[in-house]
Formats: sequence, structure tokens, C-alpha cells
Amino acid sequence: MASLRDIVTSASINLLSAFGFLMAFAILRIQPFNDRVYFPRWYKKGTRSSPTRSGAYASKFVNLDCRTYLNFLNWMPAALRMPEPELIDHAGLDSVAYIRIYLLGLKIFVPLAVLSFMVLVPVNWIGDTLERAKDLNFSDIDKLSISNVPDGSKGFWAHIVMSYVFSFWTFYVLYSEYKVLATMRADYLASETRRPDQFTVLVRNIPPDPDESVSEHVQHFFCVNHPDHYLTHQIVYNANKLASLVSKKRDLQNWYIYYQNKFERTSKRPLTKTGFMGLWGTQVDAIDHYTSQIQKLNEEEAVERERVKKDPDAIVPAAFVSFKSRWAAAVCAQTQLCRNPTLWLTEWAPEPRDVYWDNFAIPYFELTIRRLITAVALFFLIFFFMIPIAFVQSLANIEGIQKVFPFLKPLIRIESVKSVIQGFLPGIVLKIFLAVLPQILMTMSKIEGYPSISALDRKSAAKYHMFILVNIFLGSIITGSALQQLKTFIDLPPTEIPKTIGVYIPMKANFFITYIMVDGWAGVAAEILRLVPLVLFHLKNTFLVKTEQDRYEAMEPGSIDFPVGEPRIQLYILLGLVYAPITPFLLPFIIIFLAFAYVVFRNQCKSTFMSRYGSESDKFDYFLLLLERNVVVCLCKVINVYDPNYESAAAFWPDVHKRVVIGLFISQLLLLGLLSTKKIGRNHFALLPLPVLTIWFFMYCKGRFESGFIRFPLQEAMVKDTLERATEPQFNLKAYLKDAYMHPVFKSSDVEKSDFTFEEEKSPLVATTRVATKLSPDVNSSSPVQSDA
Amino acid sequence: MASLRDIVTSASINLLSAFGFLMAFAILRIQPFNDRVYFPRWYKKGTRSSPTRSGAYASKFVNLDCRTYLNFLNWMPAALRMPEPELIDHAGLDSVAYIRIYLLGLKIFVPLAVLSFMVLVPVNWIGDTLERAKDLNFSDIDKLSISNVPDGSKGFWAHIVMSYVFSFWTFYVLYSEYKVLATMRADYLASETRRPDQFTVLVRNIPPDPDESVSEHVQHFFCVNHPDHYLTHQIVYNANKLASLVSKKRDLQNWYIYYQNKFERTSKRPLTKTGFMGLWGTQVDAIDHYTSQIQKLNEEEAVERERVKKDPDAIVPAAFVSFKSRWAAAVCAQTQLCRNPTLWLTEWAPEPRDVYWDNFAIPYFELTIRRLITAVALFFLIFFFMIPIAFVQSLANIEGIQKVFPFLKPLIRIESVKSVIQGFLPGIVLKIFLAVLPQILMTMSKIEGYPSISALDRKSAAKYHMFILVNIFLGSIITGSALQQLKTFIDLPPTEIPKTIGVYIPMKANFFITYIMVDGWAGVAAEILRLVPLVLFHLKNTFLVKTEQDRYEAMEPGSIDFPVGEPRIQLYILLGLVYAPITPFLLPFIIIFLAFAYVVFRNQCKSTFMSRYGSESDKFDYFLLLLERNVVVCLCKVINVYDPNYESAAAFWPDVHKRVVIGLFISQLLLLGLLSTKKIGRNHFALLPLPVLTIWFFMYCKGRFESGFIRFPLQEAMVKDTLERATEPQFNLKAYLKDAYMHPVFKSSDVEKSDFTFEEEKSPLVATTRVATKLSPDVNSSSPVQSDA
Repeated sequence: MASLRDIVTSASINLLSAFGFLMAFAILRIQPFNDRVYFPRWYKKGTRSSPTRSGAYASKFVNLDCRTYLNFLNWMPAALRMPEPELIDHAGLDSVAYIRIYLLGLKIFVPLAVLSFMVLVPVNWIGDTLERAKDLNFSDIDKLSISNVPDGSKGFWAHIVMSYVFSFWTFYVLYSEYKVLATMRADYLASETRRPDQFTVLVRNIPPDPDESVSEHVQHFFCVNHPDHYLTHQIVYNANKLASLVSKKRDLQNWYIYYQNKFERTSKRPLTKTGFMGLWGTQVDAIDHYTSQIQKLNEEEAVERERVKKDPDAIVPAAFVSFKSRWAAAVCAQTQLCRNPTLWLTEWAPEPRDVYWDNFAIPYFELTIRRLITAVALFFLIFFFMIPIAFVQSLANIEGIQKVFPFLKPLIRIESVKSVIQGFLPGIVLKIFLAVLPQILMTMSKIEGYPSISALDRKSAAKYHMFILVNIFLGSIITGSALQQLKTFIDLPPTEIPKTIGVYIPMKANFFITYIMVDGWAGVAAEILRLVPLVLFHLKNTFLVKTEQDRYEAMEPGSIDFPVGEPRIQLYILLGLVYAPITPFLLPFIIIFLAFAYVVFRNQCKSTFMSRYGSESDKFDYFLLLLERNVVVCLCKVINVYDPNYESAAAFWPDVHKRVVIGLFISQLLLLGLLSTKKIGRNHFALLPLPVLTIWFFMYCKGRFESGFIRFPLQEAMVKDTLERATEPQFNLKAYLKDAYMHPVFKSSDVEKSDFTFEEEKSPLVATTRVATKLSPDVNSSSPVQSDA
Repeated sequence: MASLRDIVTSASINLLSAFGFLMAFAILRIQPFNDRVYFPRWYKKGTRSSPTRSGAYASKFVNLDCRTYLNFLNWMPAALRMPEPELIDHAGLDSVAYIRIYLLGLKIFVPLAVLSFMVLVPVNWIGDTLERAKDLNFSDIDKLSISNVPDGSKGFWAHIVMSYVFSFWTFYVLYSEYKVLATMRADYLASETRRPDQFTVLVRNIPPDPDESVSEHVQHFFCVNHPDHYLTHQIVYNANKLASLVSKKRDLQNWYIYYQNKFERTSKRPLTKTGFMGLWGTQVDAIDHYTSQIQKLNEEEAVERERVKKDPDAIVPAAFVSFKSRWAAAVCAQTQLCRNPTLWLTEWAPEPRDVYWDNFAIPYFELTIRRLITAVALFFLIFFFMIPIAFVQSLANIEGIQKVFPFLKPLIRIESVKSVIQGFLPGIVLKIFLAVLPQILMTMSKIEGYPSISALDRKSAAKYHMFILVNIFLGSIITGSALQQLKTFIDLPPTEIPKTIGVYIPMKANFFITYIMVDGWAGVAAEILRLVPLVLFHLKNTFLVKTEQDRYEAMEPGSIDFPVGEPRIQLYILLGLVYAPITPFLLPFIIIFLAFAYVVFRNQCKSTFMSRYGSESDKFDYFLLLLERNVVVCLCKVINVYDPNYESAAAFWPDVHKRVVIGLFISQLLLLGLLSTKKIGRNHFALLPLPVLTIWFFMYCKGRFESGFIRFPLQEAMVKDTLERATEPQFNLKAYLKDAYMHPVFKSSDVEKSDFTFEEEKSPLVATTRVATKLSPDVNSSSPVQSDA
């Protein structure tokens, strides 16, 4: 077992590395060399709101003012100072809600830690069980844990009472956070300007009609059943082949532009080879070659485009149906249309950019089969992952390594090496395993057939949470203990097993403390700079990028972090809840992680959006924009929140709430199990009401708040409709909605236009708080920094 | 343990008694003396459709035709011959759906029994484990059970494979029944004529408004949020005090009529005493006394009536809001109105007669607290009931009785007495306990705050099912075994416990066979005649009844049987599913019960409504009507289904389905546990996919069918609206709905009128298939027997 010294070594290493990253960030940040990257707008305007840079303009490249180095951490209070509504305006509600998960953790654990150290640590300390039981391995930290209280002691009443206090405090915090989030979401939705998804409902499982096309069928059905409200609809095409043609064409166009540029620069017609990547084959004139290729593809594409639009088989039995008012859309999304509840399924349409186009054609039966298969697959995934984890972790044990690789003995005997191995290895092993997983889980969610990217993210997060729960949490406790104590277990009578596990749950605290440091502390700090993507971008920029378009694509934000980040926080919260009554010593580590992450992410959230560009685009600015965009995007990834693909208005909060409640429930059951081994008669049954109360609390909150995250109240819809009718009576809604839900491939011909002319900013119809799919400086148009210019 | 002889004795006693009841029913039924009671209409019309009575008109009082006695059971095929749609027309969908539970059971168990006896019984029989293991008690029946297969035998594969076959067959039957019921319900709702609840939505948790009364607030709110559809609303008064005054007045009026009649008969002014029940106090003239008393109450009532109507505190924050079309009502019932999802809660309004008026004022938080308290109370109820049951059952064991009452030994030694005690006692003990329970559970459901009687019934049934599951099923297996084998258990190491229980589950088959016979067979037969309520009615009629009104009330149907009957059937289905792979010998007993009950109930359902009176009301006919009504009502109670208080259109079927699935799930887990003790390596894990499939099946059916039982599809509503607008464009809906949802106490002044003038029949507005709260022959107006007259 790791001793207190191992923990201290590990903690200092981790703190140092975190500090190093922060230093690097802070120093880079105040260098004039990088100033343009981090604060470009302020520069131009000459505002001096950032005190760190007030005297730093002396030198062009290096900041020589020592004062700024001394208070290089003062971005932290600044990060905390920005009011939340403004933050929502800038970063969207999703980001703010995500940050509030950390805040939730802090609100739970700071009082818990204070109470634990005031009440439970003294109670644990005065026990002396571990010193007397010489046959068990234990460390110094365990003396502060419940293991140190002698069996049958009256001291366990302290743990029981504190468990009640902890639970009720957690209830209180969870409830008030849920309430705040529900209000935030309602306010956010109420304050939004007109958006296509407010008027639109996604209809799936449209039954085939022998006499009518899907489009006619939809139109007739809604004209009959929503006669006063139906406005228009958009059918969904199965455009996979077309999409691949379009993407191929874009690739060729890119090459064409590249050679065109080259030709303009060198005035010499470039050559290329017809084979793969232009590496072999016959040599031809590049510009001519690509011109003809593009021409050919253009023809193919036109044919395919016609086919898709005309072929009835290319039409998926789903449609986006739009209504004349938000009220009617809200009504249609919430009601059952057809007698057969698996046909004409309606649901709130996702935002156009949030639509996941591949999942519309799945009939109901196939959907449930897919979910069954995914559930079974998930089970096996979780189950078989345990074997390698257990194996590698048993190796990561010093004694285990010595046994398996006896030749390493002399190296391991060096105390510092031993500490490093003890401290880092188990955590890193887990991290490597986890890195493989999110993509698999996302694929499984896609198979399950959810129609929007936000839903896919939420479902992936749920799967990942389950994985973490079983493999990291339970797997580390049970498998680890089992491998260490397997021989002991086999020799003991079965009644002794729960007792043995009971003793080993608190002793696993060391492992989890290390894990929090490796995964949490260093992880957050390392992600501030996102060195890897930055380096990758610069490499790409130098070697691969051929055109502006390429450069733009090189700095794409890539995948989303919510499905990975959120379950990870949940693991820390679970650990905190489980160990709060057992080993309070673990709590400060969690609090440091949460506080650190909260401040950092809040700062990123703020500075990311504060430093956004406007829509000016002279050459140099545009390059700067790209560069800054790169940093911004990287920082966005740090935030783990800011997902440029959609704004779900904190739709994930019910999941967050549920998982914290699950953590609380598990912690209560584990404490109950642990105390039942402590020979305190039947006193541990005093804990039984807690899980019941927890379930009730969950049900209550679900009924009280959840529908606010799923449904759209008619009252709100009516208010917005009325307001709109009064202010813009002549507005042509049909024209506005006409192409809102068109498959992106049909819009592909004007990709460049939509990307670079910032169409959305020019259009007053679109919410200014929205962040468009790609390069979209429209966010800034409502930013206070801009508006006072 | 009961031997095969005990079972045979018990079976013959039970069969004989059942046969006796059937005989009595059949003989009474064909006596001309009772003819007027059972077939009054046919008599009058002179139709001779019933062959049993074709030659029975010779004698006035006794049937002398031997032929009719010989084929006295031919009502059975007749009962099965009536087509289902006609039965729905007569008895309502609830009754038909209830009967289909028996049919469901039969469809599951007949093939299961055939397969079991073909495959599993031979496999079990060739084993010889029990003969070799001398230390365990066992009976002859156990030789046919799984206990007789030696450990580690390949024969267990037969059980595993058959368990799959059984499960898939059960899935198939459940699925097709659910489908049939969903279609039936949809057709039934579609075929219904205009009813107030189609246009009305129940709104609860209306927030208080400082400036407006509840009524104004409701009106304004719906005028704003459903501007095109809102029609009218009806607020709900807290009229508990008024209701008690009205009931008191009715009582006094009854006495008044009694003395008035007496005075008319004897021409002598009757006297009474002013004290309790007229038994003591000063003597006064009865008619004058009651006249003044009634006068006084009338005044009090008028004051209270005014107060309730004017006092804002007497108004409950709930209302029945009616719309101009079914479409709008369906929309409002299915959508969320307010941003706060615990305010302005809307749900489909129950039928006016189905409303439970006391539960409208409960705010959301209190509601969840009430549900928590009820859940905890239910837990304790279930938990503490186990102690007396276990105690009495341990006495009911012959050896137990001998030990506790040694003086009874000589009596018990007589073999026949012993058999009777063995066979009857445990079942009867359970029956007595169960008789106490339903009222408690109904009270608990009322505390939970459901707004309709049908919902209360369904929730009570759910509670009762849980009770039966834990106390009768698990309690009988585990407690019984535990008490018998307690000493053995304590001496064994804990790993042996599951094995011991595994051996005792199949051995409990004897007990359950007895239970099925006592509770099932004899129960159904005894209920055909409902001797107890019949005798009670005649006693009341002779000694207590003072006026026509009293006589009418004496034959009130009383409480409803669904919450008791349905969970009981579920117990038999559970037993069948659990024992099908373990002790197939139990299946025939269940099949006999189900088939018997199915035929009998179907017949009652048919004949009850076939023999209904028209609305003629000459004096003698009216008396006959009352008499017949009594029999009819009693028979109605036999049916356990026909509940004159409401017609929920089989809304309980999802519960039925769920409970059968729960039974299947339990049976699979128990078989898995049992096989895990049989030393067949890890082969029992071959059963693991079954519970997973069962859960998937449940989810699939829930998604596929359940919303058909909760929501009302807009398409159907629109069809009905359109049809109605075309056929009756001038219909005054507002007038029709005006008083539909008035608290019954405000209608009390015309109770007699509505009861005896058959108001509903005269009104074309009300569905003819509906059965009114009280004496309501309007059912017959659509009966084919009537219509061909």
C-alpha cells in the first residue's frame, strides 16, 4: 500500500506540473508576442482594462515588467468576476451549465469537508484498530479513516449521523441547483429570438401510403389534423451517396485552387500524376486535370441530385413539419397523433445544425432491437474491459512488479523510483484505457438511432458514466482488493467476505487520491494550453495546408468533450460522496480539483468569447483571426463545454442531477454495508431510511423540474407568438422556414458563401447568441466589448 | 409434508363443493319460482330462446322435467357462444377486458402444461434423488418435480431449453393480447357517442392570484393560452360539510316517509322519542318532529350552500375546463401549460361519475410527501403482516399443532381429520388475513391523492399485488421453509442456504396446490350465488328497510372487486410461470381454475345484461325490478369486473401486462437460482439472457402500446369532431357541458328524479352503452334482446 510519503511525493509532482502549466499559460499570456493572440480586440481599440498589461507595452516581444510576473495569477479573480448572464450571452447556456457542475461539486464538498474534519477525523483518530491488527496492510492515511474505529464502538453513531447531515446537505444543494438551472433554461428559451426549431416538429415513422408520396401524405395528414396551424414541411432525403460525391468534389476543388495559386505565384503550369495522392501514374497538367475531374464530378453530382429528389426510394419516412406559431409546434411535439403510437412519432425538432441526418429511417421495432443489442454490447464492453484493467493494475503494484519481473528489483528498491511508480502508474493505466473508449460509445449511441447530436452526446455520456462506475470505481475497489487478497478470501468462510471488503473499501482511498491527482489536477492544468492540438495545427499549417479553406479546416474543433468530461466529474463527485463519511482525507483533493477546474474553465469561457473578432476581414486580420481562432478553439476544447455544434440550453442537466443522486445512493449503500461489518448490533439499520429518502428526492425533483428540460410550456410559446404578431405582423414565416431543415449536402454549393460572408450576422432572423457551425464571429455582435465600440 | 393422498382428499372436497354450488345455481336457475328473477323479459315476451325452460312451464313452482336437470350445465357452451363485440355492448369494455385476463392465463398455460408433461415430467421421473436422500421430507408429487433430477445431470438442459420455450410463448401471448386490447380500446373510444369527459380537462394546482378569484383566473388563463378553443369551466368546491348535511337530511326524510306511510296504514299518528335512534328522550309526535327537523336542516343547508358558493376559501384550486372540440381537449390534456411544471397540471378528465371529489386540493409537494409516506407505510404493512402469517402457518402444520396443543394429539391422529387440517388450514389462514386488507390499501391510495375512482382502483390493485407477491408467494416459500428448517439453516455454512432454499421451492408446490384449490376453485364456485349478500339483503329487507328508497339502497353494489380480484389472478399466473419448469404437476390445477372462472364469469357477464329490465315501471314490475336488480347486482359482484361506478375502457390492461411480465421475470430468476445449486457447472448461466429479453420485451410493449391507454390521439379526436360538426352543426355544447362536472351534492335535490326517471335514457346526449351509477336500465336500450322487441 502507498504510504503517506508516496502521496506527498505524488501530490508535489502533480502540483508542480500543474503549476508549471499555469506558469507557462500566464507567461505566454502576458507576452506582447502573444498579445495579439489573446487580446486582439483590446489592442486595436486601445482599451486598457487588463491591468496585467498596463506596463507591458515597452518591449515589442518580451514582457520586462517584473510586477506582472508576480501577480500572474490575477486572471483568477477576474475570471470569477464576470456576471453569469453575461457569460451566458457569450458562451451559451450549455457552457455555463457545464461550469456549474464544478460549482455544484464545490457547494457540496466544501461544507462536507469542514464537517468531516471537525467531527469524523477526531473520532477516527482516537480509534487504534489498525495498529493492533498487524496482519493487515495499512498506511498512515488509513488511521484517519473509519477503519481505525474499533468494532462495536459508539463512535460509529457519529458516522451515521454525519451521513444523514451529508445527505441532506447534498439534497439541498442539488435541489437549489436544479431550480436555478431550470429557471436559467426557461429564461434563456424565453429570451431567444426567432429560430426555425421553435416552429418545427420532427415527425418520424410516417407510414407508407400506396397512393401518395411521403410529402403528399405528410401534407394531407397535417392539413387534416392541424388544419389551422400547419404551415409547411421539409422531407428528408437519404443523401449519403450525394454527400460523398460532394465531399470528393470539394477535395478536388481544393487541389485545383492550390495549383491555381501555385501557377499564379510561379507563372509555371504545375504538373501532377494521376495515381493516388499524385504520387505515381502518368504525369499531366495539374490544372487541366483537376478541371476535367471536377467537371466529371459535377455531372455525376447533378445526376445524383436529380435522382435523390425524384426517386421515391431516396425519401426517408420522416419529415420536418413547420407550423404557423410556436404554440402549434409545442402542441404537436407533445401530443400523440395517430392511434398506433409507433407511427407519426413527433418530437421537438433539434436545431438545424444539431440534426444527425443518418438516423431518420429506422422503424420502431428495429429501434428497440438496436437498443437491446447496444445494451448487451455495452454490458460486454464493460465486462471485458475489466480483465485487462485488473491485469495491468496488478502489475502496477510494486510487489506485483517485483514478482513478475524479478530483474527489476534493484531499480524498484530506489525509494524515489518506487514512489513515482506507486503514484503514477495505476492512474495512467486507467487513462490509457479510457482514451480508447469515447468513440466506441458514440458509435453505439449512433446505432441506437437518436436524431440529434446533442442527444447522442447525452447518451454517450450516460454509457461512459456506467463504464466509469463499474470499471474504475467498482473495478478498482473489488478487483484490486480481490487480487491482493484472493488467497485470504478463499481460505475464509463466506460470511467473512463482506467484512473483508468492508475493511478494504476505506483502504482504497490511497489509490483514488493518486487517481484524482493524476487525472484531475494535472489533467486540468495540461489542458489549459492544449499543446498537442496547437503543435498539430502548426505542423498541418506548415506541411499540409494548401489553401485558405484547408487552413480553416485544420483548426476545426473536432470532437466534443461533454460525453467524456461530464462522467469524469461525476466520478470525482461519487468518490467524494463515498469517502466523505469513510476517509475524509480524500475530500480536500477533490475540492482542489473542482475549484481549480472551475476557475480555469470559467476564465476560458470568459476570455474565449471576450476576445472574439468582429467581421472585419482585411488580409492580416484574417490571418490573425485564423490564428486566434485556433487558440480559441483549442481553449474551447479546454473548457470541455463550448461545443460549437449546437446549443441545447442545458438539456443535459437532468442527467447530471441523476448521476449525482446515483452517486449519493451508492455512497449510502456502501456505508451501510461497511457498518454492517463493524459489530454494532443492528444499529447500522439506522441508515436504511437514507436510500429511501434519496429515491424520493429523485422522484420529487424529476416531477418538479424535468419536464422543463423536455417540454416547451404553451404559456411561454403563446407569449412569444403574441409578441411577435404584434411587432412583426407582416413577417413571412414560410419563406424563413423554407430551407431551414435542408440536408447540408443540398446547401453545399454555397458552402464558401455561408462560411465567409457571415450570412447569419447579416440576417436579423437568426439569434445573435447562437454560435454557428463554423467560423462565426456573429457571437460578438451582442458582446458588450463590441457594443461599446 | 402433505402426501399425494392429502392432495387428492382436498381436491375432491373442493371439487365437490364447487360442483354443489354449480348444481344449486343450475337448479335454482331453471325453477319457475326463480324464473321471473333470472329471465323476466323473456317471460313477458313469450320468446322461447332458452331451451332449458321449454318444457318447464307445466308446474307453477317446481320444474318437473328431468331432461332439464340432466343438461343443467348447458349454459356453459351458451356462455361461450356470445360474440365479444356484443358482450362489450352489454357489459362494457372493462368487464370484457377483465374476462380476457383469464383467457390470457389459459392461452399461456394450456400449451405450457402440454409441453411440460411431454418433456419435463419424464425427465424428472427418471431421476431418483429424493428416494436416496432420506434425510429430507418429500412427497409423491415431488418425484415429478425438478427436485428428483440428480445434481449435475444432463437432464437440466431440458429445463433450460423449456424455460426458453415457455418464455417465448408467454411473450407471444402477452404481445398479441396487448395488441388486441389496444385495438379494442381504440375502437371502443372511437365508437362512443358524445360524453362530457371527451371535451374536458382536469386542471389542478392552479396558483393563487391576489387579484382574481380562481374562476376568473382559470378563465383568463385559458382565454389567453387556448384562445380559439376554450369554451367553459367548472370550479370545484370543497363541499364536505354540505355533503354531510345533505346526507343527514336524506336520513330524516326517510324516517319522515316511514312514519307518513305508517300513519296512512294505521290512521294513528305515530310517536317517537327525541334521543338516539328514537330509543329514549321525551316522546313527541313523529311526523311533526321530523317535519320540523327537516325544516331546520333545510335552512342550515341553504346557508351552507350559499356559503360554499360565495366563500373563496371553499373553492379548491382545481377546475374542469371544457373546450369547443375533442381535439383541443386532447391537446390541453397532453401538453404542459406553465413554465413551472407543478402548476396548472392538466390531465384527461375522468368521467363525471368516476371523479373522486376529495383529492383536488393537494399541492404538488404535499402529494410527493404523501406518496413517500404511503410507500413507507406499505412497506411496513407488508413487513409486519409476515409475522402473524408465519406464526399462524407454523401452527397450521400438523407437527406444530401437536407440539403447541399436545391434548389434541388423539384427534389429529385420525387420518381423515389430519388430511382436512393439512389441506384447508394454511389456505384459510391466508384468506382471513387477506379479507382485512383491501380497504386499508384503498385508504392508502386515497391518501396518495388520485383524482378518479378508476385510478384509485388501479393503484390499490398494484399495492395488493405487491402484498401478495411478498407475503403469500415469497412469505409462503421462505418463511415456511425457514420455520421448518431453521435449525438446519443455523448449523449450515451460508453457502448452503441457497441450495437448501432451492430444494424447498419445488417442495412448496403442495402448499400452493392446496391454496389454488381452496382459494381458486371453491372461491369461484361459492361466488356464483353470492349467498352472503343475498341473505344480507333479505334480512335488511325484512328488518331495516322502511321505504322504497331504503330498499333501493340495501341492494347497492357496494365496493368494487377489481383491486382484489386482479392481483389474485396474477398470483395464480405467477405460480404457474414459476412452477411450469419446476413442478409441472401444478399447472392443471391452475388451468382448471382459470377455465372455470372464465366460463362462469363470461356467463354472468352475458346473462346479467341480457336479463335487464326496460324502463316500464308499473308497481309489480318495479318490485320485480328491484328484486332482479338485487340478483343482478350480486351477480355483478361475482363477475368481479362489472363496476357500475365507471367505465375506464380497459385502462388497467397495462398494469395486467406489467404484472404478468413481473411474474415471468421472477420465475426466470428463481429457476436460475435453483439450477445454480444443481452442480451443473456454469451451465445455468445459459438462462441469463432470458431476464434481459424479458426486460426488453416489457420496454418494447410499453413503447408500442401503453400510450394508447393513456393518451388520446389527435387524429381520432379530429375525426370525431369533424363528423359531429357535419351531423349536428347547431348543437349547443356549452349547455350540454354546463353541469356535467358539478359536485354530486349540488345535484342532490333531484336524486330521486335522476334515479327513477332514468334521465340518462331520455337524453340522447349520453352514451347508451354507459351504465349509470345506480339503477340504470338504459344499458338495455341498445341490447339486441330489446331491439328485436
